[in-house]
Amino acid sequence: MRRAEANQSGDGDHKLSRATVGRLSLYLRRLQRLASDGVATISSGKLGEELGVTDAQVRKDLAYLGHLGYPGVGYYPHELITVIRRVLGLDHIWSVVLVGVGNLARALLRYKGFHEQGFNLVALFDSDPAKVGQRVDDLAIEPMDRLAEVIKNKEAQLGIVAVPPEAAQSVADALVAAGIRGILNFAPTVVKVPAGVSLVAVDLAIQLEQLAFYVQNGGMDLKLLAAGDHLTLD
Amino acid sequence: MRRAEANQSGDGDHKLSRATVGRLSLYLRRLQRLASDGVATISSGKLGEELGVTDAQVRKDLAYLGHLGYPGVGYYPHELITVIRRVLGLDHIWSVVLVGVGNLARALLRYKGFHEQGFNLVALFDSDPAKVGQRVDDLAIEPMDRLAEVIKNKEAQLGIVAVPPEAAQSVADALVAAGIRGILNFAPTVVKVPAGVSLVAVDLAIQLEQLAFYVQNGGMDLKLLAAGDHLTLD
Repeated sequence: MRRAEANQSGDGDHKLSRATVGRLSLYLRRLQRLASDGVATISSGKLGEELGVTDAQVRKDLAYLGHLGYPGVGYYPHELITVIRRVLGLDHIWSVVLVGVGNLARALLRYKGFHEQGFNLVALFDSDPAKVGQRVDDLAIEPMDRLAEVIKNKEAQLGIVAVPPEAAQSVADALVAAGIRGILNFAPTVVKVPAGVSLVAVDLAIQLEQLAFYVQNGGMDLKLLAAGDHLTLD
Repeated sequence: MRRAEANQSGDGDHKLSRATVGRLSLYLRRLQRLASDGVATISSGKLGEELGVTDAQVRKDLAYLGHLGYPGVGYYPHELITVIRRVLGLDHIWSVVLVGVGNLARALLRYKGFHEQGFNLVALFDSDPAKVGQRVDDLAIEPMDRLAEVIKNKEAQLGIVAVPPEAAQSVADALVAAGIRGILNFAPTVVKVPAGVSLVAVDLAIQLEQLAFYVQNGGMDLKLLAAGDHLTLD
């Protein structure tokens, strides 16, 4: 219910809709590239252009964050970066644990984007005794029976579930019991969490199905789709 | 433009919005489980329940597909499965090639969901000479200079891009030049494709950012979120 309200009006418990949150992430990436290229100011049109977002939408989205645009000038990338990072909760480091150290987990561990945006992987867990104790990059794989203790000691807030589907719910339950407040689920199954815990699910087959649907229906012009643009249940 | 129309009205070039397409994938998964459990009929309420979709929304979505509900009975899973698979383009096999055989690719190759839903991986490519010729499951890794030839011979329609970001655009260009009609991009960068080619992008850091936002903002009740529920630019 609260989700629907927030989505439809952009004015529920959170003033930003999920769609806007997604676009803020995209603006942030673009701004970070501009800033590292030494660009001093940017117009809403230029900011939206590469992302396939209209200048009107850019201005509307950024207006939620305060009076950040300067007439005749545009936006200052460094100022916008600071504000967007604060709104998204990226102005501090998030401690993340990962459960299930298979190929997907190894790919995620090497994915630089996580660390760059302030996500710090602090522990790995696996139920396979043969994997426990192995090191992946800087982390030793921990056994599942240390989950609660390690999460508490490391003050981890987020958990990534990368286990087979049949284990996903019990792993999510264990993470929640240990105090994890948000779960990113890669297991191809529906996982439930109690109220007060957030869940984002990634189902890679569904994304391939979406693509197949578009191709089948005549190659809908999705060239403007950018990273982060996915299916939604809204 | 066309995208926006289709999303807002559900009545653009495609009568199904992206949101509806996403839900159809979820219904399909649920129905497949029900059918394999031997369930003969299902109500809209029961179908939506586990997915966090209201019965009214289920009925509305399925009404797009024709007159499939029977008063006092509900839906027949086998009938719905057939119709949804046809609408999604899953009533035939899609041939898919994958470029960039790292950990992510290996995780995807072992992901049973692809094959179950009719996606047949027919070729792997990598630019690393040390990987070329290696076998992953049943497939030998091909060199990039065979891309066009293999895609033509295998009549592949979809391509998965799992290369580092700096190589993603050139790989996408090569896939399009070889006749690929839809691209699933995992590289954390914006990739552009010409009109008539479809693109779905997956940015795993953005999904973690979305999660962080929800957690930061008081643990929005997202327990009803199911697989395939992601950010959108709509």
